[in-house]
Amino acid sequence: MALTILVVNGPNLNMLGTRETDVYGHATLDELIAGVAAHAESRGAVLRHVQSNVEGDLVAAIQTAAADGEGAADGEGAADGVVLNAGALTHYSIALRDAIAAVDVPVVETHLSNVYAREDFRHTSAIAGVCAGVVAGFGATSYLLAVDALIDLLGG
Amino acid sequence: MALTILVVNGPNLNMLGTRETDVYGHATLDELIAGVAAHAESRGAVLRHVQSNVEGDLVAAIQTAAADGEGAADGEGAADGVVLNAGALTHYSIALRDAIAAVDVPVVETHLSNVYAREDFRHTSAIAGVCAGVVAGFGATSYLLAVDALIDLLGG
Amino acid sequence: MALTILVVNGPNLNMLGTRETDVYGHATLDELIAGVAAHAESRGAVLRHVQSNVEGDLVAAIQTAAADGEGAADGEGAADGVVLNAGALTHYSIALRDAIAAVDVPVVETHLSNVYAREDFRHTSAIAGVCAGVVAGFGATSYLLAVDALIDLLGG
Amino acid sequence: MALTILVVNGPNLNMLGTRETDVYGHATLDELIAGVAAHAESRGAVLRHVQSNVEGDLVAAIQTAAADGEGAADGEGAADGVVLNAGALTHYSIALRDAIAAVDVPVVETHLSNVYAREDFRHTSAIAGVCAGVVAGFGATSYLLAVDALIDLLGG
Amino acid sequence: MALTILVVNGPNLNMLGTRETDVYGHATLDELIAGVAAHAESRGAVLRHVQSNVEGDLVAAIQTAAADGEGAADGEGAADGVVLNAGALTHYSIALRDAIAAVDVPVVETHLSNVYAREDFRHTSAIAGVCAGVVAGFGATSYLLAVDALIDLLGG
Amino acid sequence: MALTILVVNGPNLNMLGTRETDVYGHATLDELIAGVAAHAESRGAVLRHVQSNVEGDLVAAIQTAAADGEGAADGEGAADGVVLNAGALTHYSIALRDAIAAVDVPVVETHLSNVYAREDFRHTSAIAGVCAGVVAGFGATSYLLAVDALIDLLGG
Amino acid sequence: MALTILVVNGPNLNMLGTRETDVYGHATLDELIAGVAAHAESRGAVLRHVQSNVEGDLVAAIQTAAADGEGAADGEGAADGVVLNAGALTHYSIALRDAIAAVDVPVVETHLSNVYAREDFRHTSAIAGVCAGVVAGFGATSYLLAVDALIDLLGG
Amino acid sequence: MALTILVVNGPNLNMLGTRETDVYGHATLDELIAGVAAHAESRGAVLRHVQSNVEGDLVAAIQTAAADGEGAADGEGAADGVVLNAGALTHYSIALRDAIAAVDVPVVETHLSNVYAREDFRHTSAIAGVCAGVVAGFGATSYLLAVDALIDLLGG
Amino acid sequence: MALTILVVNGPNLNMLGTRETDVYGHATLDELIAGVAAHAESRGAVLRHVQSNVEGDLVAAIQTAAADGEGAADGEGAADGVVLNAGALTHYSIALRDAIAAVDVPVVETHLSNVYAREDFRHTSAIAGVCAGVVAGFGATSYLLAVDALIDLLGG
Amino acid sequence: MALTILVVNGPNLNMLGTRETDVYGHATLDELIAGVAAHAESRGAVLRHVQSNVEGDLVAAIQTAAADGEGAADGEGAADGVVLNAGALTHYSIALRDAIAAVDVPVVETHLSNVYAREDFRHTSAIAGVCAGVVAGFGATSYLLAVDALIDLLGG
Amino acid sequence: MALTILVVNGPNLNMLGTRETDVYGHATLDELIAGVAAHAESRGAVLRHVQSNVEGDLVAAIQTAAADGEGAADGEGAADGVVLNAGALTHYSIALRDAIAAVDVPVVETHLSNVYAREDFRHTSAIAGVCAGVVAGFGATSYLLAVDALIDLLGG
Amino acid sequence: MALTILVVNGPNLNMLGTRETDVYGHATLDELIAGVAAHAESRGAVLRHVQSNVEGDLVAAIQTAAADGEGAADGEGAADGVVLNAGALTHYSIALRDAIAAVDVPVVETHLSNVYAREDFRHTSAIAGVCAGVVAGFGATSYLLAVDALIDLLGG
Repeated sequence: MALTILVVNGPNLNMLGTRETDVYGHATLDELIAGVAAHAESRGAVLRHVQSNVEGDLVAAIQTAAADGEGAADGEGAADGVVLNAGALTHYSIALRDAIAAVDVPVVETHLSNVYAREDFRHTSAIAGVCAGVVAGFGATSYLLAVDALIDLLGG
Repeated sequence: MALTILVVNGPNLNMLGTRETDVYGHATLDELIAGVAAHAESRGAVLRHVQSNVEGDLVAAIQTAAADGEGAADGEGAADGVVLNAGALTHYSIALRDAIAAVDVPVVETHLSNVYAREDFRHTSAIAGVCAGVVAGFGATSYLLAVDALIDLLGG
Repeated sequence: MALTILVVNGPNLNMLGTRETDVYGHATLDELIAGVAAHAESRGAVLRHVQSNVEGDLVAAIQTAAADGEGAADGEGAADGVVLNAGALTHYSIALRDAIAAVDVPVVETHLSNVYAREDFRHTSAIAGVCAGVVAGFGATSYLLAVDALIDLLGG
Repeated sequence: MALTILVVNGPNLNMLGTRETDVYGHATLDELIAGVAAHAESRGAVLRHVQSNVEGDLVAAIQTAAADGEGAADGEGAADGVVLNAGALTHYSIALRDAIAAVDVPVVETHLSNVYAREDFRHTSAIAGVCAGVVAGFGATSYLLAVDALIDLLGG
Repeated sequence: MALTILVVNGPNLNMLGTRETDVYGHATLDELIAGVAAHAESRGAVLRHVQSNVEGDLVAAIQTAAADGEGAADGEGAADGVVLNAGALTHYSIALRDAIAAVDVPVVETHLSNVYAREDFRHTSAIAGVCAGVVAGFGATSYLLAVDALIDLLGG
Repeated sequence: MALTILVVNGPNLNMLGTRETDVYGHATLDELIAGVAAHAESRGAVLRHVQSNVEGDLVAAIQTAAADGEGAADGEGAADGVVLNAGALTHYSIALRDAIAAVDVPVVETHLSNVYAREDFRHTSAIAGVCAGVVAGFGATSYLLAVDALIDLLGG
Repeated sequence: MALTILVVNGPNLNMLGTRETDVYGHATLDELIAGVAAHAESRGAVLRHVQSNVEGDLVAAIQTAAADGEGAADGEGAADGVVLNAGALTHYSIALRDAIAAVDVPVVETHLSNVYAREDFRHTSAIAGVCAGVVAGFGATSYLLAVDALIDLLGG
Repeated sequence: MALTILVVNGPNLNMLGTRETDVYGHATLDELIAGVAAHAESRGAVLRHVQSNVEGDLVAAIQTAAADGEGAADGEGAADGVVLNAGALTHYSIALRDAIAAVDVPVVETHLSNVYAREDFRHTSAIAGVCAGVVAGFGATSYLLAVDALIDLLGG
Repeated sequence: MALTILVVNGPNLNMLGTRETDVYGHATLDELIAGVAAHAESRGAVLRHVQSNVEGDLVAAIQTAAADGEGAADGEGAADGVVLNAGALTHYSIALRDAIAAVDVPVVETHLSNVYAREDFRHTSAIAGVCAGVVAGFGATSYLLAVDALIDLLGG
Repeated sequence: MALTILVVNGPNLNMLGTRETDVYGHATLDELIAGVAAHAESRGAVLRHVQSNVEGDLVAAIQTAAADGEGAADGEGAADGVVLNAGALTHYSIALRDAIAAVDVPVVETHLSNVYAREDFRHTSAIAGVCAGVVAGFGATSYLLAVDALIDLLGG
Repeated sequence: MALTILVVNGPNLNMLGTRETDVYGHATLDELIAGVAAHAESRGAVLRHVQSNVEGDLVAAIQTAAADGEGAADGEGAADGVVLNAGALTHYSIALRDAIAAVDVPVVETHLSNVYAREDFRHTSAIAGVCAGVVAGFGATSYLLAVDALIDLLGG
Repeated sequence: MALTILVVNGPNLNMLGTRETDVYGHATLDELIAGVAAHAESRGAVLRHVQSNVEGDLVAAIQTAAADGEGAADGEGAADGVVLNAGALTHYSIALRDAIAAVDVPVVETHLSNVYAREDFRHTSAIAGVCAGVVAGFGATSYLLAVDALIDLLGG
């Protein structure tokens, strides 16, 4: 059966492609996700995507990865792994950390930009310690690599 | 007239009983709250419960403790005291701190686990300074003791 | 054409006028905003107002300042400048910082109280570095001065 | 057989009721302990009490909790659990921490006042990490809750 | 009777308009003050201005705000409020802080640039804690807004 | 009636005059105290002296300053003021700080050497914040000045 | 023409497969590199590999990536991109940082383990700020993903 | 020959007696100095007094203590010891520290209030390390004790 | 004449052999000291032993090393060197540091466990800077090595 | 035309040659400057010298380097480069930093002693970041080297 | 079969006996090692010695302790324990730490001088946490004690 | 006899002139050294030059400055002074610091760029405290000034 990979995008990633295009490029979030989904499909995996600016909604999204289905809201379901770009929340959301620690599936911390080459407060991660690994700095390609990493981790 | 005690649970506490059962036990949040409600009732108090993963919703929940009723949403109402397990938000939510400071009712910071025996970032609390007191480390019993503390504080 | 100024108020500002009146005065948020709107109108500007306790909703509100209208939800639209009182989130919300950096309109960090005269943790701002400027300490007048500053910045 | 609970009070708690009565109330230490003993008895437990201003004597008192009796001085004996209000030593006595870690019985860190609402140096505990849990802020009631917590922990 | 507002400018502000014009614009200090005086006059207030590169002279200038006149040097006199741009001294002059605390008139910390968007050492203020409020980032307009804030504070 | 001044000396001050005489001089503790007593007598005050290497005994000694006599051990009694050289405990004994805060009499922190000219860890005092003042650096004369300060404070 | 990718491995990576196999697996460094070379070849790239325990030799190895060939030692030559696992030197070698900054080719910081889940001193990187990006936590797969990232960056 | 003692008062001490009288009392600086001079005279010493708000002038004043007279300005001259209340400059003026270190006469750091009981930034001294000693917290009496300390140090 | 070596053991070392035997082994303190005494005797030295949980008693014990005998209590006497395992006090007792500095005999800081491999607060020593050297990590053998080191230092 | 080099000396440098001659040698400031002037002349440059103990006067002196002459006080004029020994102000005067940044001429931070070999607080410079370079540790020769460096920078 | 003990000496230890003889004595490294070898032999152990100024070479030397012989360079071989004086590298070489962690033999951190009595940066060790223990401060005797400790650890 | 000056260049300085030419200019290391040698010769001194990317080799190079020749490798020999540009190692190599401290010749810390105007981690030096002085920021001229400083120090 195909692996299900959940992509979770945090605050401001809905602005992709229309703002700060010199930094993030001209691809919109929809276009980014379409590319990641195509890549996942080519690797035999199914993609599910959630974007929210609200920390608590991201916590809930990660929790669904472990959901058994019975109590899940419509359109939700378990996932085998998570690609998580928590945006700014990466640096202070212990709530996201706890959500990751609470589910049994591997989560890959993912960033479009090389956060370590930016402001000091972006050099620390509240979540990396409970993730399986980190991929950062390669633009949209970061997501594709994270999908590959998950498939490898899951023996896919 | 019976005291009303509001129990507010923060991020990931909805996962109780299904995940990390070695740490938190097998009781679900519903079961936990049922036990706390029974205890409150035995002490002559009524329990109201809110759980959310969203910081702002928790802020709003605490604000309801001071609500006079007229502007309160359906099912909401004033409370005489609050048992607050803010989960991970304990450690960084100044917004919760401000909400606690803005209401006139006593709030007891409550934790299932002994947060002081865990990671360093769990040793600081953004909210303890404006709470009436702290109870931590006794599992579900922490909530019962917090209820008892509130009833004592309220002269109940 | 009249300038549109968006006023964004963060957590607990909905409690204005009913709690801690010794600190914040007896004016409610509605009354505060009415005063600011009247002042803006006298300067030839139109006011739009959003209050939320939820960080993510405030992120979204700031994003609307740059919205081109087509994808904006009902009642939303672009703004020429933003008066932002992020409340407690001022001190830790990098997500708000990123939202401000992502839009092209000037944002003025605004506070009712002189945050620098309060607890140490209120002396640092996660957002000031990407704002046009700061006005703090003058009660409701802070908002009027911020509106004036924006109109001046916008050549109004 | 009845549980034995050891209450250990640290420096300056012998001044209770005669000094700083606005902070600590008018009950003397004897009155406090009498109340705790009565509560313990009502729960089927026996109380033993030690107060000292000397760190090393408190270390020794905690060690007696694990004593097998043979080498114990007159009037000493094992205890099933410890209620420990280490006073100022809470914040720097690693020797107390080691004593707690060396005995097998649960110890509850207990405070009359909410130490987290006082000076910064009272926000850190050298001992909480090896205690079973913490109860702080409820005056004499803190001791009663700590007794209840111990009885619960001990299956009493 | 007209309000008297004292404008105090610190080190290097005498260089305005001739150096770093890309940052501070082409207006000289004289032109800046002329504009602020005109604005004050339009609000029914009288402006007095002092600029010095010497910390102690700035301390003395602030002290004059509270002078009763008898012991004041020629051309000096009491003021009802102070607009203070302490320049670099903002960040380390506790002597200025003490001077502000010693006088009974409101002082507004004022900056041409948004100091929070510059080097880290400009993010802390030694004086903000004893000022009435802060206005920063709006160029010469910062001074006008500070005057407005003072007049509002003084019930002008 | 004559004022009673309690001199409390902490750890290692019993070694005075026999060790490190290049630093502390050749006078023994007995000789030092004799000199202080003579000075006190010349000012119309009576001296009581306690030296201990044990923190808890020093806590108890300070507590006696406020003793009403009834519960005091033989040879103990209330004092009108305290000259306290806590030695090394100055820098970490919060228990001493609490004892000072618990009694109503003025305490003067006193040192033979200028602690601020020695190792960094001697530059901070755990007790100065609750003392009436500090005298340091003048050898035995520090004690005489402290006695004078107390007599002045007590209106003697 | 085929891309040349230089893999640089730092201190102790020569121990792979023979020590701490529970952490790093049973594959030796030779086997790891063989796998990476095969992957590179499948992507149309040629691999060159250097391992050293000596910081200065790693500096030199990175410098060769920019070598024009004439002065290069036997077997050395320019590279189009670098996969760098600097091992422990990641956390303190500013010399490596300067070497990376001095060459014009993209460098990917790579780690077998998730360094962010280990000791605190492994959470900071002296080199990430001048790298193109980071891949960490996926064992040997980290190297494959780094190769893929480089090929993508180089338009391969 | 009579000892000459130089009293040096720093920023804002010229405000004594007219501002913050609840903290500093109603005595003016002139009255304070008159009292100190009388005390010095009673001990056979002559007082010279300098007050300035300007750090550099205080540096110069301290330098005069070591002046041989030939190059000294009118009214200046050598001193045998210095009573220095550097006010706010105590906490950051390394220039004053260097001036003290450059002269051969003993300097006593003196404060009216107990600076260790005030804001944290008043707990560190830039000058104490090169002074003979410190007297703080006894109001005008601090100056008298400092004079006594100097006379004792000078064998007066 | 035989060298006299004083072994001083701090808080909780009286618990050896009965608690945490997995860490500290099954030998009791008596057995440990018997072994050390036998070793000392084999090297021609006499052992004297003090154990206390009280910091001040340990200070006194170290002071006896330098005692000339006349004022020493029964059973006390000078020593030629000290083996000091201060237990938890190692990390914060400046009083012990001062005692060591006050005596002229060499003191060897000794630990059963490798304190540098345990919690961060055990990585700093308040006393090492005034000791002759440090031996840590070898269980009871640490004491034997410390004795050997002392005998070597003393030319024994 | 000859280059004009401005030498600016800060607090306490007027004491050269008369105090602390073991550290700074026996040459007076006049002699030092005479030597530097002779060296400058030998290189075809003219020297102008300012010494002050007052930070603000040093700020003004640096500003004159950029003065166009019209508004300059008697004896002042533009300079092509500045040799600045700010003395103790080096370590905290952001006002000097701003003055340096405000003029267009190169400034060389200069010290007689090797400040990096002295107290920790002398290891940081508030001004080095806006200077052209630093020369420290070579006594009077430091000034000669700084002159040489300036002439080289100015193409002299 | 005899135990093999590897002694590894780090940077600048090759200078022993010729430089800083007041600190390190007049014995050269050869003489030191000869003494250690003789001592080892007397305990039935064989000594192997490596000295290098190059961190990477020291890493390699430690790795040889675990070498099985087949791939070892000439003259190299496995060892049963390591006496490691890493010199300055002790304080920052995480690469050495990793090498120690990678081999299965006990390593004793050894120092000639008492590093805890020297500069602050010598008080932290990057390697102690993975060593068996530490011996420091006894000159050449430190090595002998380390050998004894290893033989004891190895049951020799 | 001519003075011998040793120039030691650290990591990445072999890249001079071919990389980052906007920062470091177009002169290669060979050209730089040729210029320094010519300057030294014009001052009557002979230059010896070592460049290495390996910390340990730089340590060895500095040690040769004190070599007596007998044990020195071919082409090595004593030097009268050292010009040391340790590159990135400046900021963390305590091993280099120890090497400098171990030789009796003066060492001048030298930098092409003004390190104090670059990243924070370049503002601290591990070696400056044991150097004679520092010259930084003047490009190749820094080396010439360092040579001049050494010749002056050596009385050349």
